[in-house]
Amino acid sequence: MSGNKQYHVVVLGVGFGGLTFCQNFRHPNARITVVDRTNHHLFQPLLYQVAAAGLSAPEIAQPIRGILSNRPDITVLFNKVVDFDLAQKRVVLEKGSLDYDYLVVAMGGQTGYFGHPEWEQFAPGLKTLDDALRIRSQILLAFEKAENETDPAESDRLLTIVVVGGGPTGVELAGAFAELTRTVLNRDFRRIDPTKARIILIEGSPTVLSHLPPDLSASAQRQLESLGVQVRNNIHVKDIRAGEVELANGEIIRAGNILWAAGVSATPLTKNLGVELDKSGRVKANPDLSLPGHPEIFAIGDMALVLGENGKPVPGVSPAAMQMGKHVAKIVEHEINASAKPATRPAFKYWDKGTMATIGRSAAVAWVGRFKFSGFLAWLAWLFIHLIFLIGFRNRLAVLFQWTYSYFSYKRSARIITYTPPDSSETK
Amino acid sequence: MSGNKQYHVVVLGVGFGGLTFCQNFRHPNARITVVDRTNHHLFQPLLYQVAAAGLSAPEIAQPIRGILSNRPDITVLFNKVVDFDLAQKRVVLEKGSLDYDYLVVAMGGQTGYFGHPEWEQFAPGLKTLDDALRIRSQILLAFEKAENETDPAESDRLLTIVVVGGGPTGVELAGAFAELTRTVLNRDFRRIDPTKARIILIEGSPTVLSHLPPDLSASAQRQLESLGVQVRNNIHVKDIRAGEVELANGEIIRAGNILWAAGVSATPLTKNLGVELDKSGRVKANPDLSLPGHPEIFAIGDMALVLGENGKPVPGVSPAAMQMGKHVAKIVEHEINASAKPATRPAFKYWDKGTMATIGRSAAVAWVGRFKFSGFLAWLAWLFIHLIFLIGFRNRLAVLFQWTYSYFSYKRSARIITYTPPDSSETK
Repeated sequence: MSGNKQYHVVVLGVGFGGLTFCQNFRHPNARITVVDRTNHHLFQPLLYQVAAAGLSAPEIAQPIRGILSNRPDITVLFNKVVDFDLAQKRVVLEKGSLDYDYLVVAMGGQTGYFGHPEWEQFAPGLKTLDDALRIRSQILLAFEKAENETDPAESDRLLTIVVVGGGPTGVELAGAFAELTRTVLNRDFRRIDPTKARIILIEGSPTVLSHLPPDLSASAQRQLESLGVQVRNNIHVKDIRAGEVELANGEIIRAGNILWAAGVSATPLTKNLGVELDKSGRVKANPDLSLPGHPEIFAIGDMALVLGENGKPVPGVSPAAMQMGKHVAKIVEHEINASAKPATRPAFKYWDKGTMATIGRSAAVAWVGRFKFSGFLAWLAWLFIHLIFLIGFRNRLAVLFQWTYSYFSYKRSARIITYTPPDSSETK
Repeated sequence: MSGNKQYHVVVLGVGFGGLTFCQNFRHPNARITVVDRTNHHLFQPLLYQVAAAGLSAPEIAQPIRGILSNRPDITVLFNKVVDFDLAQKRVVLEKGSLDYDYLVVAMGGQTGYFGHPEWEQFAPGLKTLDDALRIRSQILLAFEKAENETDPAESDRLLTIVVVGGGPTGVELAGAFAELTRTVLNRDFRRIDPTKARIILIEGSPTVLSHLPPDLSASAQRQLESLGVQVRNNIHVKDIRAGEVELANGEIIRAGNILWAAGVSATPLTKNLGVELDKSGRVKANPDLSLPGHPEIFAIGDMALVLGENGKPVPGVSPAAMQMGKHVAKIVEHEINASAKPATRPAFKYWDKGTMATIGRSAAVAWVGRFKFSGFLAWLAWLFIHLIFLIGFRNRLAVLFQWTYSYFSYKRSARIITYTPPDSSETK
């Protein structure tokens, strides 16, 4: 019997983790069903470029069906997970349900507001393409409104962009908006001067990019400041209201655009897995990435908490998610071949390939093993690595073309307002 | 005094007409203010490609400010026109107002429902980028829903696309959806077969593309049918309801996607111009394109009704709008130089450069002077001409790249669902 048993592997989420699992797992005795709430795999490291009108949405997204169309063993469902029935080995979907032999949970994270969900309406985060398109429209709209505005105070407010959080996303966003206003929009208006737009980056800890060595953090801050970003370290946000941010010292910054890049939490569905979570909702997985008490379920990517060899949690970055997907693929393949669960499974080992963050045109920091780079060289490395990893030949060429063109022409072609947000108080 | 008088020219709308006026009018004694409700100039002839996931939005749209950034004499306002005060020579905007010496009204058209505005919610039209993105999401979503659907009748309904109106837009849409389902989505689903999707084109008159000679219309129909489109001529739509179309003979077609390509009417603001309109709201302009009784106001483009040399109305196509913009630019320049309004102005003469419509990959019809083409040759001509006219170097190259890639790979990269429409009854 064992040789003919057909296994059903269900994969929830087609981010870097889920996709890498699919690409590394294929077995004649198994079929795979993947479920995602979107129809595309997103190259999240470049999402900020869409928000800053540097790239168009399809350039960083690929239809999941397109990626997997040559895999007849994989069925893709555009559907939402609503619950788990662990005893029955069943995932409950918005429409229907799926029984599994193995379950790979790779649903990623979402913007977290540290217990202040009411801030979301005033300070959107950046996790999905919709988020990016909404932010792009909102920022461009604020400049258009300022051009029509006769009250100088209101015009100043509209031209103020506050980015909360000095991690990689916050630094990239602030740098990209500085470039957008200084080198792209600068000649386009007649009544306002976009180069006078204030871009303020607020960070609670003593430095931006605090996961990097101090000299690289300091370099990143200098590079940001030379682009025109005001960096405010060591200060927390106390409250966010319509069109203004209140800092811990009582200072109020009036801003037409407030963006949240300070926190990520796992999808709330992790609560339904019946296992221990950390404070940002991540699943405390076994060393092999399975769930305690459920060897048939694996948690991978941003929603999994697992410790690296240095005893610190493996960071929520795409290379880690991809390595986890590969690790789980090997375990499942091995067990299907052995037709039994072996007594022990290999533990996941994270291989840190280095860290980098881009700040703008020719501006970046990179930390790879013993080497630290900043400025143009780091930026070139960043460019090269992102192009290599950007999925799909077509996207790679289009993005390269786009970047080369932007680099030499100082124009940005995605500068169109399509989605006009409901006239929220931020940009009123 | 006359030599130093400063003229203020206000241009409403930056479509082909308004933009061509700006590009052809420049005078040391004049400044221009242009007003548009969007921030981009749209290459409308390719809008259907965005709806059919062949191109991304930024590839056919250019920021107006970007196009005009080298013109310090032009101020761009992202604002809405709400009324005219013709006696005061003033345009009332949503925010503020503008006094003019010359006014160029080039606000284009909108989808018209022949007195059935209630059909709009069930059968969206295609005039703006938002329309195109919404249609793209809706169609792709219908296929995703069908893949999750267990009721075969509902699945069939979701896989039915009805296009109402067999003019150029309807033909292009139907052809593009036939290609999308037959050559792009065909390998991507496991439960449904996208090549079985029904695409029905409904036209009230005896032929599609009835403005072309009968042999070209017949060729277009044959080419559509060979792509898999069901063409229904000679039948009118009686009613459109949620998820179904009722024809004049009582037949009911249940369809997950209904698109309206049957009518265009001028912007309703033409009513406030106090002059005679035709039944689709177009302004009956003088032969010089000025408004009766108002030599300082011109109406150009789709919202102007003016007769060609053959006694028939000049068609609402981009070459006509561009020629009108150029004509008005000459008149205004001449009069500012002469510092007086001459007794007579030249009449507008429309130069018909030919007509073409594309149907799909290697499929099109073209009618240029004495020459008629169809099939591959017409398609090549169409491709070439659209690339030549597509504004902006970068867009031209990106679109060429995109098309070449699509042609050889049968993939479409813009196949992403970003805007999820409120769960309307069409795709429930």
